Amino acid sequence: MREIIAVIRINKVNETKKALVDAGIPAFTATGRVMGRGKGQVHFDILKGAETGHPEAIAQLGNAPRLVAKRILTVVVPEELCKTAIDTIIRTNQTGNPGDGKIFVTPIVETIRVRTGEEGNEALN
Amino acid sequence: MREIIAVIRINKVNETKKALVDAGIPAFTATGRVMGRGKGQVHFDILKGAETGHPEAIAQLGNAPRLVAKRILTVVVPEELCKTAIDTIIRTNQTGNPGDGKIFVTPIVETIRVRTGEEGNEALN
Amino acid sequence: MREIIAVIRINKVNETKKALVDAGIPAFTATGRVMGRGKGQVHFDILKGAETGHPEAIAQLGNAPRLVAKRILTVVVPEELCKTAIDTIIRTNQTGNPGDGKIFVTPIVETIRVRTGEEGNEALN
Repeated sequence: MREIIAVIRINKVNETKKALVDAGIPAFTATGRVMGRGKGQVHFDILKGAETGHPEAIAQLGNAPRLVAKRILTVVVPEELCKTAIDTIIRTNQTGNPGDGKIFVTPIVETIRVRTGEEGNEALN
Repeated sequence: MREIIAVIRINKVNETKKALVDAGIPAFTATGRVMGRGKGQVHFDILKGAETGHPEAIAQLGNAPRLVAKRILTVVVPEELCKTAIDTIIRTNQTGNPGDGKIFVTPIVETIRVRTGEEGNEALN
Repeated sequence: MREIIAVIRINKVNETKKALVDAGIPAFTATGRVMGRGKGQVHFDILKGAETGHPEAIAQLGNAPRLVAKRILTVVVPEELCKTAIDTIIRTNQTGNPGDGKIFVTPIVETIRVRTGEEGNEALN
């Protein structure tokens, strides 16, 4: 089992989720967390303001080209679907411009469905 | 050390945190992140609106039975408390209805208490 | 590759991000997630209220000394920069008082830059 953490453009979240569903990825997805490119030159409050649509904050972000407000989309998938999920995310988000985002993959050692106690891949479907 | 990520009903968060404390789980817990069942048929903004109590958004969610607004509760525990933590989360959240949630377990390779520099289980207590 | 999850004081986030940049940490950083010290004696809504600056909520938090509203700062770094990143976070956040925070390290098994498809450390820089 793998957790795929995709840091993508805010306006790509819904398209990405839809593409994952279309590709048969049965995973839970979570979206959230304000994101910056860790260069430290933009104050967190500005990023947060931009994320929530505050125009002054967006204007300030516009002056800091290396920082992009992002969403994190998290998907948990069986290992055999990991490549499909990654390819789907890349295909949906690759514009060729800086700021297309990054994908991180972490191991999940156990998955349990609360309702039934099912474990592993059974718990995901 | 394990990170236990429980995706549970919003109205079960406090009860679950209390049950973990009562079970002697000395872990840090984090709550947050909007959540959907990854089926892609509900717009993220609706989910977010529902999460923040916006009535139109909740009404729309009501029409999409396979999507449930959720909270993520994250607990970091020593490996020997992992089963106890999982059992506690299941017991507190299992209603038998769809939407009871899922539990994911990921490895934590290092834990450090900032104040003292203590590592491992020492850092958790 | 490692994901370093630092649970730190809200007012230390910007200083910490700046220190990481100064230390040559080229990582993406994410901030977010409301945080409590998992003792269960404070209602989540109070924590959330305090986090967003609501004075009554802050007052209530003041009566619960073991609970501290926190931010989570997430940094992904190549393994060889893991110690530098941790030391930087400790140095920036260590006041010697309770509530300085905790650092968790998790493995990242794959990193991909969406724009180019580059993998591993190449994807981070």
